[in-house]
Amino acid sequence: MIEQYRNCIEACYLCAAACDNCAASCLQEENLEMMRDCIRLDIQCANICRLAAQFMALNSESAKKLCAVCAEICQQCGDECGKHQHDHCQDCSKACHRCAEECRKMAA
Amino acid sequence: MIEQYRNCIEACYLCAAACDNCAASCLQEENLEMMRDCIRLDIQCANICRLAAQFMALNSESAKKLCAVCAEICQQCGDECGKHQHDHCQDCSKACHRCAEECRKMAA
Amino acid sequence: MIEQYRNCIEACYLCAAACDNCAASCLQEENLEMMRDCIRLDIQCANICRLAAQFMALNSESAKKLCAVCAEICQQCGDECGKHQHDHCQDCSKACHRCAEECRKMAA
Amino acid sequence: MIEQYRNCIEACYLCAAACDNCAASCLQEENLEMMRDCIRLDIQCANICRLAAQFMALNSESAKKLCAVCAEICQQCGDECGKHQHDHCQDCSKACHRCAEECRKMAA
Repeated sequence: MIEQYRNCIEACYLCAAACDNCAASCLQEENLEMMRDCIRLDIQCANICRLAAQFMALNSESAKKLCAVCAEICQQCGDECGKHQHDHCQDCSKACHRCAEECRKMAA
Repeated sequence: MIEQYRNCIEACYLCAAACDNCAASCLQEENLEMMRDCIRLDIQCANICRLAAQFMALNSESAKKLCAVCAEICQQCGDECGKHQHDHCQDCSKACHRCAEECRKMAA
Repeated sequence: MIEQYRNCIEACYLCAAACDNCAASCLQEENLEMMRDCIRLDIQCANICRLAAQFMALNSESAKKLCAVCAEICQQCGDECGKHQHDHCQDCSKACHRCAEECRKMAA
Repeated sequence: MIEQYRNCIEACYLCAAACDNCAASCLQEENLEMMRDCIRLDIQCANICRLAAQFMALNSESAKKLCAVCAEICQQCGDECGKHQHDHCQDCSKACHRCAEECRKMAA
């Protein structure tokens, strides 16, 4: 693995797993009405994180551009999840914010 | 995260990263001719690992079936990569075999 | 493109697009409470359809096994979406059932 | 489906299928040595096309940004594939250039 990418790839995959888990858990919550944006952003965030991780591991020339878009979506998703008190939302918010930070460093 | 899935999700994402890295590195090797099957299986393995990890994190009823298919592809890819002496092939072979084992446990 | 795969690849991608659209549209519906299973299955179905299409276009030896799993998920998703009267659910149900049929033929 | 996205989603999925097919076919060509860049870009292009299509069908606020990155990768991949005379390369080049154009319109 390209050494410079290792932390960011790990953060992306941890974020993807946290977002998938959060989306599925939100869909079982009683207060579903409040979780619309959380689910919507979780779906997007999980999938861009997986693609960003793939492009880094492929050592693609386009990895930085993808990390820049990924950082923005992670930031949005982490901010939204952070508003909710469920454990899966709080865990997801942390994973998203960490991933946003790693992706910003990578995109710089 | 569903606790039972944690190890297998981690193994899937480590395997995906190793396969992506191996495919890209094989494409830069001098003895490209020998790497045809390795590249071909790396591409497939990376992508089914990402989907299996996603289905586990989503707590999908279909996760076990996907893990069963994933285990087979990981086994094939790990066996093929293991034939080559490049570090990226050997690393990938280990990640694939570990993932195959975790996926078999999950599918059982 | 491998000719035998053409119809099934097309059905998979049409199904993926219908499922993505249905999930996002469900998340904006007033009667969100009723749409839990629909959203949950849409997410899974869109993603397995994309992977099945990829494996067919790659002419993978594992394409048939993936189509078999894909057919089951498409059938479930199409049945669930068919219970709801929203246009996006009815459109999605048709796309899922058509894709289930194509995938079953492919897996046979 | 959001009407404005229909053509671009279709172009993305046709491009993804053409790139997957081209990558797998290149890996079976005699003159493999010449196909390194073609395979490398095919892998990247197929996967960003699928994500861009997903984001459009999800009606994501980030769809335009992803289409902008997708357009660049499609352009590169289409230019590279266009250098080779194999049918799968020429078909792929056309699908990539058409997708690049649709993605540029979408990103504008």
